[in-house]
Amino acid sequence: MAMTASGGATMAIVTLTTDFGTSDHYVACMKGVILQIAPTAYLIDVTHQIGRHDVVHAAFVVRQVFEYYPRGTIHVVVVDPGVGTTRRLLALQYSGQTLLAPDNGVASLVHRDAQLNDIRSIENLELFRRHVSSTFHGRDILAPVAGFLAAGGAIANVGPQVQQLEILNLPRALVLPDGGLEGQVLYKDTFGNLISNISREDLRGCLARRPQAEVYVGALRIGPVRRTYADVPPGEIVALMSSAGALEVAINQDSAATRLRAGPGSSIIVR
Amino acid sequence: MAMTASGGATMAIVTLTTDFGTSDHYVACMKGVILQIAPTAYLIDVTHQIGRHDVVHAAFVVRQVFEYYPRGTIHVVVVDPGVGTTRRLLALQYSGQTLLAPDNGVASLVHRDAQLNDIRSIENLELFRRHVSSTFHGRDILAPVAGFLAAGGAIANVGPQVQQLEILNLPRALVLPDGGLEGQVLYKDTFGNLISNISREDLRGCLARRPQAEVYVGALRIGPVRRTYADVPPGEIVALMSSAGALEVAINQDSAATRLRAGPGSSIIVR
Amino acid sequence: MAMTASGGATMAIVTLTTDFGTSDHYVACMKGVILQIAPTAYLIDVTHQIGRHDVVHAAFVVRQVFEYYPRGTIHVVVVDPGVGTTRRLLALQYSGQTLLAPDNGVASLVHRDAQLNDIRSIENLELFRRHVSSTFHGRDILAPVAGFLAAGGAIANVGPQVQQLEILNLPRALVLPDGGLEGQVLYKDTFGNLISNISREDLRGCLARRPQAEVYVGALRIGPVRRTYADVPPGEIVALMSSAGALEVAINQDSAATRLRAGPGSSIIVR
Repeated sequence: MAMTASGGATMAIVTLTTDFGTSDHYVACMKGVILQIAPTAYLIDVTHQIGRHDVVHAAFVVRQVFEYYPRGTIHVVVVDPGVGTTRRLLALQYSGQTLLAPDNGVASLVHRDAQLNDIRSIENLELFRRHVSSTFHGRDILAPVAGFLAAGGAIANVGPQVQQLEILNLPRALVLPDGGLEGQVLYKDTFGNLISNISREDLRGCLARRPQAEVYVGALRIGPVRRTYADVPPGEIVALMSSAGALEVAINQDSAATRLRAGPGSSIIVR
Repeated sequence: MAMTASGGATMAIVTLTTDFGTSDHYVACMKGVILQIAPTAYLIDVTHQIGRHDVVHAAFVVRQVFEYYPRGTIHVVVVDPGVGTTRRLLALQYSGQTLLAPDNGVASLVHRDAQLNDIRSIENLELFRRHVSSTFHGRDILAPVAGFLAAGGAIANVGPQVQQLEILNLPRALVLPDGGLEGQVLYKDTFGNLISNISREDLRGCLARRPQAEVYVGALRIGPVRRTYADVPPGEIVALMSSAGALEVAINQDSAATRLRAGPGSSIIVR
Repeated sequence: MAMTASGGATMAIVTLTTDFGTSDHYVACMKGVILQIAPTAYLIDVTHQIGRHDVVHAAFVVRQVFEYYPRGTIHVVVVDPGVGTTRRLLALQYSGQTLLAPDNGVASLVHRDAQLNDIRSIENLELFRRHVSSTFHGRDILAPVAGFLAAGGAIANVGPQVQQLEILNLPRALVLPDGGLEGQVLYKDTFGNLISNISREDLRGCLARRPQAEVYVGALRIGPVRRTYADVPPGEIVALMSSAGALEVAINQDSAATRLRAGPGSSIIVR
């Protein structure tokens, strides 16, 4: 699955998504472990600013990233409040890409949208570092397994197949009796843009039923769905289809999250 | 222009400069798009902490970086308050390096100092992603065009040649009637160092006219131009020639911006 | 020492550890300088969030990272309050890896724990950039020397051998008359975990002498040494063996540094 350059060196992409921040040694230690096993792995930092233990944040980011990477990519996700407990570590293969992550729901949105190929429980001790700490399985288990896969190892070797995984109970948008939609904010980005759980298809159906429908955050009327931020003057609120493929509420050149005091869980209505 | 490794794989460097921050998926999505097209591109994050929509900040950083990269490098700059409006996206080639950026002035300082080879308006839809969002042209247009160029594509294919670009109206240092200089702070770095628009040549001319000239921030006398921070005791103010090639006012081991309450636009006098 | 890919291109890893932050051009300029000399160097950002001029922070991070990288890796450390003064720049080789750093103690912990091969004072002007600024030796001296080594250059060429280096006077844990241990916090990570100077061996000896020993932060009793964070309920304090190989005091899913108002220098007792 990994691309091969001349000479047969693998060039698999390995992405890293963690809540480790960037001021400590943690991420660099993981990279060293991966590169010792797969010297030509192409490492990509997705983000290390996932909210501490915020599995929903991680699930959203990984789902977005997944869509833009080639087959053969290995995504390592370390948001792991249960490190050292009996929670499993999984290798999940979807549409030819692999996720390595604790079994805590971070794969939920990829699982919802992508084609499942295989799920393995990571249990092959031979792939682990010799000394496995109780508090840093990212470095001692996930990193060497990522290296193994990036170097061309088969997912079947990481452990036994499993049939179940933890799935987050994320709300989906509801069709209201009047044909409108009731959803909620799923993600707040660094600009303060509020990305909802109302998909492009949800919205298309709603607008077919109610062509004049407008967007509301709680009781606040935002207006119709527009095309881009600059469709309203700076400082004004705008609803539009996010680049993430879901209805978004934003303020042109300002933070909707701050100004509207809204965030994940806030109600978004289209009617 | 791109370097070739054995086997002919291109190894073009692609740098990224944005105001996206590092906690979301945005940057990683751009990288995935680039690598799908140019798997061996060498990606470099310049910074994703450009002040939101701060075109001057971006122009300064890109100008600095430009000086230290080889011919063939592609610099992608996404600081784009006008995304989705009619503002153009440009491919600008200077001294054998290429800038991909909105036409909003971010190229101003490179344009001032480097040798212009070509300017193209990015309009070749065949290079874009199939679905182009209205709010993320970095991912849907600039990233695939960067991939195209990094994979060896010709700039002539990205769109028609244009003759004009937006240039920021940045003030230049003035020679005063008494032979002194009046400039201003152009950039405040993360240490709180204040980098002015007074160049090495400006200063050399001034010191030829006034060998005893000293530096002032507003009415505050800083003293003569020194060599390095440690030429004054910790906590003391110092004026020196910045590593960026312009007069800088700093505090040894502290923040001049905070202590002097100064920043971009603050007056700097040499007399 | 550097790995070679097909065709003989070197693939040496070059890591960067600085206090430059990530919002300016400084790091990217260093990378450009390295890549102009060693186009296939594999660049790794360890962190650029070392506390400003915090040599102890850097020494700890570099020591951790060092353990996980292969022979041939070049670690560039730029935490340099004395830039432009007469402090030396050193190339230090330990266990087949090389550190390039100011002679200010950042190598202390690697020096304590790794096998010294060679120390050189970086003085070969031919390797420097043509114009060397007085305030950015990371870019003008360390980066080109890193490029030289990454491209296969010999450490013997960077300058004369030296016999001494600055070593930080970091306290070691003491055995108390009653067989207990008195140590202190050496490092506070981004989670607020407090990592001490009490090593695994120190602790093993103490527990052999006092099998019921418990951990104290100042007068506050934490309890016995446990295995992982989740061995106590969320919000509770826990002492455990850190993934860094030293005794750590943490709060499950919260910050021990904030809650205990502790940090580097705080007393840690085991008795």
